Amino acid sequence: MRKVTVYITLKQGVLDPQGKAIQESLNSLGYKEVEEARVGKYIEMTIEDGPKLEDRVKEMCDKLLANPVIEDYQFEIGEAAHS
Amino acid sequence: MRKVTVYITLKQGVLDPQGKAIQESLNSLGYKEVEEARVGKYIEMTIEDGPKLEDRVKEMCDKLLANPVIEDYQFEIGEAAHS
Repeated sequence: MRKVTVYITLKQGVLDPQGKAIQESLNSLGYKEVEEARVGKYIEMTIEDGPKLEDRVKEMCDKLLANPVIEDYQFEIGEAAHS
Repeated sequence: MRKVTVYITLKQGVLDPQGKAIQESLNSLGYKEVEEARVGKYIEMTIEDGPKLEDRVKEMCDKLLANPVIEDYQFEIGEAAHS
């Protein structure tokens, strides 16, 4: 088994109203030092190890996890774990 | 300016229907090796450097960014960047 972590972020230039709301809420709570906030997704998966794991994770991101028009993604494949 | 990255995940034992939906969708797309998926949030902030930055980020997480009842968080404070 492998732990795979996928980080999905909005591409630069894509408006992020949720991030803007967070930034404004933090500012109004007194955290005036927060200049920008952007929100992304963080997906942790447990995947059975197999050949071409990296290629398959990339496909999963392109097909389902991320929207490649507006989002970028990165992923990390962790060490094999015993389950 | 500092880049601060916050990772928010559901606590172990908290049901994650969104993660379950992702796992089932991946399985039905042919990625049968995916045994579990859990979804969290990933927040990137640009924050003006100042004293007690770490304590302040922790407060932001406790007060606004995460729900400490059901979520765990971790954060990383990046190197000072010139803007």
